[in-house]
Amino acid sequence: MSHSVISVPSAAPLRELLARRRPGFSLEAPFYHSPQVFEADLEYIFRRHWIYVGVSAEIPEPGDYLTVELGRDPILILRDDDMAVRAFHNVCRHRGSRLCAGRQGSVGNLVCPYHQWTYDLSGRLIFADHMADGFDPSHHSLKPVALKNLEGLLFICLAEQPPEDIDEMMGRMAPYLAPHHIDDCKVAAQVDIVEAGNWKLTMENNRECYHCTSNHPELTVSLYAYSYGFAPRAEQAAGLADYQRVVADSHARWEAGGLPSAEIDRLSETSGYRAMRMPLDRKGQSQTVDTGAACRKLLGELRDPASGGLSFWTQPNSWHHFMADHIVTFAALPLSAESTLVRTSWLVHKDAVEGVDYEVDNLTRVWRATNLQDRRLVEESQRGVNGSAYRPGPYSPYTEALVEKFTDWYVQRLGHGLERG
Amino acid sequence: MSHSVISVPSAAPLRELLARRRPGFSLEAPFYHSPQVFEADLEYIFRRHWIYVGVSAEIPEPGDYLTVELGRDPILILRDDDMAVRAFHNVCRHRGSRLCAGRQGSVGNLVCPYHQWTYDLSGRLIFADHMADGFDPSHHSLKPVALKNLEGLLFICLAEQPPEDIDEMMGRMAPYLAPHHIDDCKVAAQVDIVEAGNWKLTMENNRECYHCTSNHPELTVSLYAYSYGFAPRAEQAAGLADYQRVVADSHARWEAGGLPSAEIDRLSETSGYRAMRMPLDRKGQSQTVDTGAACRKLLGELRDPASGGLSFWTQPNSWHHFMADHIVTFAALPLSAESTLVRTSWLVHKDAVEGVDYEVDNLTRVWRATNLQDRRLVEESQRGVNGSAYRPGPYSPYTEALVEKFTDWYVQRLGHGLERG
Amino acid sequence: MSHSVISVPSAAPLRELLARRRPGFSLEAPFYHSPQVFEADLEYIFRRHWIYVGVSAEIPEPGDYLTVELGRDPILILRDDDMAVRAFHNVCRHRGSRLCAGRQGSVGNLVCPYHQWTYDLSGRLIFADHMADGFDPSHHSLKPVALKNLEGLLFICLAEQPPEDIDEMMGRMAPYLAPHHIDDCKVAAQVDIVEAGNWKLTMENNRECYHCTSNHPELTVSLYAYSYGFAPRAEQAAGLADYQRVVADSHARWEAGGLPSAEIDRLSETSGYRAMRMPLDRKGQSQTVDTGAACRKLLGELRDPASGGLSFWTQPNSWHHFMADHIVTFAALPLSAESTLVRTSWLVHKDAVEGVDYEVDNLTRVWRATNLQDRRLVEESQRGVNGSAYRPGPYSPYTEALVEKFTDWYVQRLGHGLERG
Repeated sequence: MSHSVISVPSAAPLRELLARRRPGFSLEAPFYHSPQVFEADLEYIFRRHWIYVGVSAEIPEPGDYLTVELGRDPILILRDDDMAVRAFHNVCRHRGSRLCAGRQGSVGNLVCPYHQWTYDLSGRLIFADHMADGFDPSHHSLKPVALKNLEGLLFICLAEQPPEDIDEMMGRMAPYLAPHHIDDCKVAAQVDIVEAGNWKLTMENNRECYHCTSNHPELTVSLYAYSYGFAPRAEQAAGLADYQRVVADSHARWEAGGLPSAEIDRLSETSGYRAMRMPLDRKGQSQTVDTGAACRKLLGELRDPASGGLSFWTQPNSWHHFMADHIVTFAALPLSAESTLVRTSWLVHKDAVEGVDYEVDNLTRVWRATNLQDRRLVEESQRGVNGSAYRPGPYSPYTEALVEKFTDWYVQRLGHGLERG
Repeated sequence: MSHSVISVPSAAPLRELLARRRPGFSLEAPFYHSPQVFEADLEYIFRRHWIYVGVSAEIPEPGDYLTVELGRDPILILRDDDMAVRAFHNVCRHRGSRLCAGRQGSVGNLVCPYHQWTYDLSGRLIFADHMADGFDPSHHSLKPVALKNLEGLLFICLAEQPPEDIDEMMGRMAPYLAPHHIDDCKVAAQVDIVEAGNWKLTMENNRECYHCTSNHPELTVSLYAYSYGFAPRAEQAAGLADYQRVVADSHARWEAGGLPSAEIDRLSETSGYRAMRMPLDRKGQSQTVDTGAACRKLLGELRDPASGGLSFWTQPNSWHHFMADHIVTFAALPLSAESTLVRTSWLVHKDAVEGVDYEVDNLTRVWRATNLQDRRLVEESQRGVNGSAYRPGPYSPYTEALVEKFTDWYVQRLGHGLERG
Repeated sequence: MSHSVISVPSAAPLRELLARRRPGFSLEAPFYHSPQVFEADLEYIFRRHWIYVGVSAEIPEPGDYLTVELGRDPILILRDDDMAVRAFHNVCRHRGSRLCAGRQGSVGNLVCPYHQWTYDLSGRLIFADHMADGFDPSHHSLKPVALKNLEGLLFICLAEQPPEDIDEMMGRMAPYLAPHHIDDCKVAAQVDIVEAGNWKLTMENNRECYHCTSNHPELTVSLYAYSYGFAPRAEQAAGLADYQRVVADSHARWEAGGLPSAEIDRLSETSGYRAMRMPLDRKGQSQTVDTGAACRKLLGELRDPASGGLSFWTQPNSWHHFMADHIVTFAALPLSAESTLVRTSWLVHKDAVEGVDYEVDNLTRVWRATNLQDRRLVEESQRGVNGSAYRPGPYSPYTEALVEKFTDWYVQRLGHGLERG
C-alpha cells in the first residue's frame, strides 16, 4: 500500500521528465524540488533498494537497538538473543504506536508504551491484555524488514523482494572490509546534520572532489589532488605520473600485506557500489588535520598506520572511509523534497580509551568541518536550481564522471520502478 | 462555499476508504495523515456538528468575549447586553479583517481595527464611515453562528442547518449538569497544548483507559481500575463485584440526594454523547494527587465533597469531569492533519479565593501531567501510523469499546456528509 | 519553463474566479490564500511585469552587487565596470549553485563557490576548469534579466518580452524624480519585515489612508487628513477647501521652482503607476515625528526643506516618498500565499554624516512604527479572509478608490496572462 491512498501522482509527467534526460548533464529542476518526484524517490529508490542505515557496533549486546526513519517509515534495528542483527517496522500491531522512540537503547523485550503489547526480540507478540477470545498473537508479530550485515555495515530494504545482487556486493566487498573488524569497534562520535537540499544534491556533492580544493581546507590536507580526476594537461603530466606511481606502489604493498586495494566499480548495478583503497598524502595515515593517526590503537588486522584509506560508496545513500586507526561512515536520509539528514559516525577500536588513545575533537574535526562546508554548497545549489533560469549544465568528464554515474543510476532505477509499478 | 474553491479533492477515494472500514479495528492510515481526509473532516465533521468550544463562565459580563479558531474559521463568542451568549464569525464585513484578535477580552461595541467599522453586541453594523450613498448597514451585520448553551457548556455549529438532536441532549443532560452551577464558576486556570497528531488520535486516546495504568500515575490514584473495562478473569471476579457494589451504592446515594448518576450512552446519535457519575477511589472527592477536594468551596448544590465525578463525553471533540469542588473541561480542536490543540480549563466556584480556598498548582497538577503523558502517546501513535507497515489493529472488546464507538460515529458521519455533499 | 513541470494547476477554476469579480468589492477569498492563485500570481504578475527591487545607490561602485529573491528566482543586480547597472539570474550555468549568497557585497569577477566557474561583470564565463574538449564558454554566460534604471530606482522583469510601456513611465517620471538625485544618495538604513499575509493585502493596505487615522499616530502627524479622500460632508466643506488651496498654492510654488507636482495617474496601464507631490502638514518638511527635516543636507536640486513629499506608487509592488531631506522607498516581495517581505530603505545625501547631519533613529522612526502597525492590519486581514464567512465587501468610493485601482489592475493583468498562456 502506498503511503497516500488518497492522492497518488500520475506517473506520466515523471516518465516524460526521465525521457528528456540528457546524458552528460545535471538533472532537470523538478528532480530537485518537486514533491511528486520526492514521493517517487521514496517509493522507487528508497523503498526498493538496499539502504545503508548504520553499523553493528552501535548495538553490540543482545537487546541493544537503534532506530532510523526511512522516509515516513520508523524502523527498529536490534541485536537478538542469538547475537543476530534484525530489523522490524517500529510499529505496534495494535493501534500503530511506535515501539521505541529514542535514537538507541537497550531492552529485554519490546514493550509498546501505549497498551503494553509486548514482543520478544524475534518480533513475536508475547503479551496483549484484554483481547477478545480467539485473538491469535501469532498473527500479530512485528513486521520484519530485510537486513544485510556486510562485515558490520547494516543495509535494510523495505521491498517485499529486495534486490538479490546485494549478495554479490557482499561477497566482493567482504575481503576489503573484513581486515578492519568493524565488530570490534565502538562508535566514538556521531553527528546528525540537516541539509536544506534535496538528497540527490547531497549525493552529487559526495561523488566528486572538483569542489574540494576551494572548499575543504581541512580535508584536502590528506588527499592527493590528482585523485580528483583532473583534466589532462601537459604541465601536470609529471605530477600525475608521480601520483600514479604512488598508487601502484601502495597497492602492491597493501595487497602483499593482505589488504585488497584495487578499484571495484559496480556503480551501475541495482545494488550499485564502488570501492578503492587510496594512498593519503603527507604522513599518509588518516583523514585528520595533520594526516597522522587519530587513534593510537589500530583496527583489526591493520599493523601499519599508513595504510591509506579504503573508500566505499554505495547507491543511493552512503559513503565510508576505512583507515588504519578509525572508520568514518555516512548515511544520507531524505526528509523532504528539500531537506536531507546526513548522519556521520566515527568508529575506533572498542578498547581504545578516550583521552588516552584518542581525542574526540581531533578524531572528528576534519569531517565536522567538511560536512558544514558541504551543507552550504548543497544549500546554495538548492536555492539556485529552484530558480526558473536553471537548466541542466554539463558535467566535467574528468572530475564529475562519478556524479554522472550516480545520476545515471538514479534515472535508470527510477525508470525501472515506474515501468514495473 | 468551501475554503478552497480552486482545488477540491474528489470524494471517490474517500468513499472507498470508508467502504473498506473493518469493524473492530482501528482506522486505515490515511484517516490519520492525509490532508484530503483532513479537509473532509473539517467540512463534514467540524462544520456540520455541534462543537464544544468553552464555558459561559469565561464571559460572565456583558461585552465579555472569547475567540476560538475552528479550522480556519475565526469565531467570536460574546455575552450581549441582555446576558445572552451569542456567536459570530469574527470577520469584518468590509474587507474581512478579524475583529477581535486576543483570546478573550471585554468591549462595549465591536470595532474593527482596520477602518473602525463598528458593530453592536447583537452583530448589527452601527458605524461605517465614507461609504457610498445607498450603502445599507443592515445588509452588513456580522454573520451569526449557531450556539447552544448547555448549563454553561458552549457548543457552536457552523452548518446552516445544525443537527436538531442537540435539544434532546440538552434536555437529558441538564439535570446531570445543573447541580454544579457552571454559571457560578470562574476559570481558575486554562492551558493550551498542541499535540503533533491527528485529532482522531487525541479522541481515541480519550475514549479508553486501557493505557492508564502504565501511563498515568497521577490520574489513576483516583480511578478504580475496574472502571476501565477489563477482560473478565476468574481471579478478578471478587474485585469486580466489589467495584460494582460501590457503584450501585454510590448511585443510590447520589440519586437520593438529587444527583442523577446512571449512565447515558447516546454516542451513536448525530450529536453523540455519553455521561455517567462514577465513584472515585480512596478519599473519593476529586481528581487530585491525594484524591481530596482541591477547593474548599463546593459547587452549586453539592454538599458532599465525596460526590464522585460526573463525566460527560461528546462527539466529536470534548470531555468533561464535574466533581463537587471543581470542573475540568477539555476541547480538542484540529489544527492540521497532524496537529491538534487541546484546551483544558479548570473551574472553581467564583467566590473561591486563590491561596485560601484553592491552590492552582494542586488543582491542575493531575491533568497537566496527564495531558503531557497523553500527548506523548498521541505523538508516538502518529509516527507509527505514518509508516507504511501500519495496518488497522484489533480493538479490545472490553477496554476499547468506546474507542470503537468513536470511530464508528466518525465513519458514519463522514459517510453521511459525503452522501449529502 | 514553469517552475513545477510535474503539477501545473488547471487555469479553468481561476478563470471562473476572475469572471465572478464584482466591481467595487474586495477580492474573493482564494485570491488571498490559494496556493494555486499564488503560483499564478508569480507566473502572470511577478514574472511578466516590471518589479521594483532596489536603488542604484545600494551599488555605487563597479563590482558592487545586491541580491533579491523574486518568487523562487534568485536575482543578482550589479554595477559593471562601465558603471552600468545589470541584472542576472544568480545561478551558475554549471550545476546551478547560487553565485552570490549575501544580501549585498562587492566583487571583481563572479566566482561560483562550488567549482569556481568564473564570470565577468558582463556575465561572460571566463573560467571553467576540467571541462571536455569542445566545451564552449560563450554558450554558458549568465542569463541576463531585463533591468530599467529610472533615475536610480531599479526595476527588473523576468519576461522574455517585458512590457514596453515602461519607457513611457520613465519618460514621464524622470522630471519628477531627477531633482532628488538618487545617484548622489546613500542607503542610511534598510529594514526587512515579513508580513504573514498575501502580498495583495500588503498592497491594498498601501493604497488607502482610510485606516491611517486610527492606526498610524506617527505617520499622520505629517499628513493632511483631507488627502485621504473623505466622503463629502457639509461640515467639512470649509476644511476641504482650505486643503485644496494649500495644494494649489504648493503646486504653483513648486512647479515655479522646477519641481513637477501635478498628479499623474496611469495605474491601469500595464506598467501602472501614479505620482503626485503633496504638501506635508505642520512644518511641512518631512515624514518625521516632528515633521521637520531628518537630515540637514538636502537632496540634489532641492533648496527648500518644505518641499512636501513626492509620492510614487507602482503596480504591482512598490511605493516611494521623496522629500527634500530624504527618500523612503518600499518593495513588497511575495514569499508564499500567506507571507510577504516588505523591504524599506531610507536614503540621504551621500555626503551627509551620521550623528552630525542626521540620526538614523529619527530618520526611520515614523516608517518603522508604521510598518509594524500595517503588518498587524495585514495579518488580521489574512486571518479573517481565511474564514469561510468572508465575502468580498464594498470599497468606499472616496477613501478606497486607489485600492480598487490596484485590484482592478491585478484582475485585468492576471486575466490577460491566463488568456495568453
